Amino acid sequence: MTPTPTPRPYSGLRCIGCGRAFPLAEIRYECDACPGLLEVVHDLDRLKAERDGAAWRILFDSRLAERGGPHKSGVWRYHELVLPDLPLDRIVSKPEGNTNLYRSPRLEGESRTREVRLKHEGENPTLSFKDRGMTAGVSWARHLGVAQVACASTGDTSAAMAAYAAQVDGMRGVVVLPRGRISVEQLSQPIASGCLTVSLPTDFDTCIRLLREVGRKRPIYLLNSVNPVRIEGQKSIAYEILQDLGWNPPDWIVVPVGNAGNISAIGKGLFDLKTLGVIDRVPRLLGAQAEAAAPLARAHREGYASRVRVRAGDTVASAIRIGDPVSYDKAVAAVRRSGGAFVSATEQEIMDAKALVDATGVYICPNSATAVAGFLKARAEGTIGEDDTIVIVATAHGCKFSQATIDYHGGRLAGVVPRLANRVVEIDAEAAAIERLLTDGEAGGPARRGGA
Amino acid sequence: MTPTPTPRPYSGLRCIGCGRAFPLAEIRYECDACPGLLEVVHDLDRLKAERDGAAWRILFDSRLAERGGPHKSGVWRYHELVLPDLPLDRIVSKPEGNTNLYRSPRLEGESRTREVRLKHEGENPTLSFKDRGMTAGVSWARHLGVAQVACASTGDTSAAMAAYAAQVDGMRGVVVLPRGRISVEQLSQPIASGCLTVSLPTDFDTCIRLLREVGRKRPIYLLNSVNPVRIEGQKSIAYEILQDLGWNPPDWIVVPVGNAGNISAIGKGLFDLKTLGVIDRVPRLLGAQAEAAAPLARAHREGYASRVRVRAGDTVASAIRIGDPVSYDKAVAAVRRSGGAFVSATEQEIMDAKALVDATGVYICPNSATAVAGFLKARAEGTIGEDDTIVIVATAHGCKFSQATIDYHGGRLAGVVPRLANRVVEIDAEAAAIERLLTDGEAGGPARRGGA
Repeated sequence: MTPTPTPRPYSGLRCIGCGRAFPLAEIRYECDACPGLLEVVHDLDRLKAERDGAAWRILFDSRLAERGGPHKSGVWRYHELVLPDLPLDRIVSKPEGNTNLYRSPRLEGESRTREVRLKHEGENPTLSFKDRGMTAGVSWARHLGVAQVACASTGDTSAAMAAYAAQVDGMRGVVVLPRGRISVEQLSQPIASGCLTVSLPTDFDTCIRLLREVGRKRPIYLLNSVNPVRIEGQKSIAYEILQDLGWNPPDWIVVPVGNAGNISAIGKGLFDLKTLGVIDRVPRLLGAQAEAAAPLARAHREGYASRVRVRAGDTVASAIRIGDPVSYDKAVAAVRRSGGAFVSATEQEIMDAKALVDATGVYICPNSATAVAGFLKARAEGTIGEDDTIVIVATAHGCKFSQATIDYHGGRLAGVVPRLANRVVEIDAEAAAIERLLTDGEAGGPARRGGA
Repeated sequence: MTPTPTPRPYSGLRCIGCGRAFPLAEIRYECDACPGLLEVVHDLDRLKAERDGAAWRILFDSRLAERGGPHKSGVWRYHELVLPDLPLDRIVSKPEGNTNLYRSPRLEGESRTREVRLKHEGENPTLSFKDRGMTAGVSWARHLGVAQVACASTGDTSAAMAAYAAQVDGMRGVVVLPRGRISVEQLSQPIASGCLTVSLPTDFDTCIRLLREVGRKRPIYLLNSVNPVRIEGQKSIAYEILQDLGWNPPDWIVVPVGNAGNISAIGKGLFDLKTLGVIDRVPRLLGAQAEAAAPLARAHREGYASRVRVRAGDTVASAIRIGDPVSYDKAVAAVRRSGGAFVSATEQEIMDAKALVDATGVYICPNSATAVAGFLKARAEGTIGEDDTIVIVATAHGCKFSQATIDYHGGRLAGVVPRLANRVVEIDAEAAAIERLLTDGEAGGPARRGGA
């Protein structure tokens, strides 16, 4: 018998600082030679030689009808562009993706813009876009034979990691958290999924530092934002938006920006598609930050003259409260290459934008609302034109943030005027009182509002 | 010009008590002649004449690849069987449905049963199965030209109604609630969606009674459980399960039962498919109730000798805490015709079942867990055999019930021993302490558990 030749891999790791290359099968998160982050690079020339743009489109479209198996996933439908070296039978999938792309006449009217859509990533199984990165990260960990995956996160990241690790026999998820700073809602998903949930009497940054230290000595696979494989899964947001639109690129894609991993991923996905001839034009990227934590918006205003770090202030958009984003360089590169921009929105603008979208029956989180507010600002400033077509990425479901919703409508958010408040109306327990209320509404007058 | 003839309708309303017929285009919820509930009946002979079973399967399968439009919905893919008289352009859809059907090796192992799957209806846009009924109810209301839709509900029903009504220009949703008995989480969805949310100083039953009284005098469309059109949308749970399985019926479908509308809907859907030749065999239905509110389980034990009403006690499965189900008769008829059964589960069994499923990364609510516990009980008692194939319907997402999860794992649920508790581990903020913990786990010993 002749031995089966090892297939030449499609992908490797590359330092975004010095360009040094490492095998993707190596568990590593940083360069040896410089402090640079790593990214996954695929052999796009080889993929291009295998199929032309039309053939890729036909392949991806043909998988839409799948009733089961990995190609049913909105991530693994694009397996060849996500992790081509990963065997299909190693994939850990719910499946995820296949989220709705909502047309929004309300936002079109409000902003006087031709076409505005919302890609609702809160409709993923654990209710945030993180599922797309975690199906990639946990699948790759399984392929590498890793028994423990870990992250330090207070929110959607640990929820997603926990839910995917729980699907793999013999794999344990480990979540490390700062003691006493986590709400029950944030704890409930990793606890429910059976993760080893560890609390340390320290702050969040120390949790991450200690975990990385442990990662250097023991065979655990870190799934924090330093992990470059997660980005490959998140690229599929871009692929799916384009496929939803019949491969016709919108003029802009708007993304909320905290650690800047997601906008980097979406940018990477778009340039992949352009390189492979799947699309003929790359949409411009608009990164939206909360004004309380907007280093990239400031860098944009200053012409990217130097790297901006800020001390993050409080914001309702707690998931993007980051003053020194991990993926700063990747995000700046992607946005500039696309001819895009970064903007910031105030707390007032964020919560008004949330109320506006929520009232159309599409329930979003404050982080997602930052993207909506950023779009409205860019449109008002003329960066986005009235004939442009827009896709805004919503990152998590509104049900993860009930309290922010209730606080806004009840007028209990400090510094925010509830301009679009919808208050509970208190009336007597009589049919006639209900009737009067309904008639008020019909006559075109405002419904009586009061109480709470 | 000759006038276009009015097409003969496919569907009408029929009293389940006396059989009297009414047009579906009439806004009515009860019979004139008797106190019976109404159901929607379709002309199945006509549908059968139009296509044979194989042709229906081909039609529904051909729509799986839709990228947009109403047929992309997991409800409207079966438009002809849901509301054939509703023009496609009147449909109000997110789209909804297309939820995951999870294979569960853990439940198969635990129960020693061949194949167990979970249909996770919590993956709908508003995070519960109610979206399927509401897309039907709100679409029909729009078709009838109704400007106001209303319900009295504390939970998933009002959330879903609000989100669909918000999609329709000129339609207002009205939610009527008992003052002071609703949590902020329950309020957040209708408030966010812009519903007129009214609170009355009374109890829940009075809210419903007053709303029905108003409904007799004014043109509002009631979307409470008395509405028969919602059932037609909910039937699609059965259609989608069967399509997911390549039209091979499982032996059992297990459904949590409160007001009993959903099990009635699923039963109706299954018998439709059998009549039309789409499937050759109807799965048996197992209805699962919480022991604190189990009139149907008692009726089953007593051979359905008389109608059972009980006073509902407290249960973690709050959405099915109903002692006198609205759809009692429909549910009994469907379950008996299928050769099925009703069972009940204790609080302990419900929360242990929830922990078991949650730990596989599929996050469910306590109501859904009642179905899992009911399955385990029916399997243990031998009602369900080891070679049977099972589909359990999970009705809402675990994220709507974080507190119950945290209370169980923290040992704070009265009368429930947290047998499968996953507690937060507190250790020192040192890399070595984390390392020790991870090594403990690898050695096969239990991870150290303590604190909270």
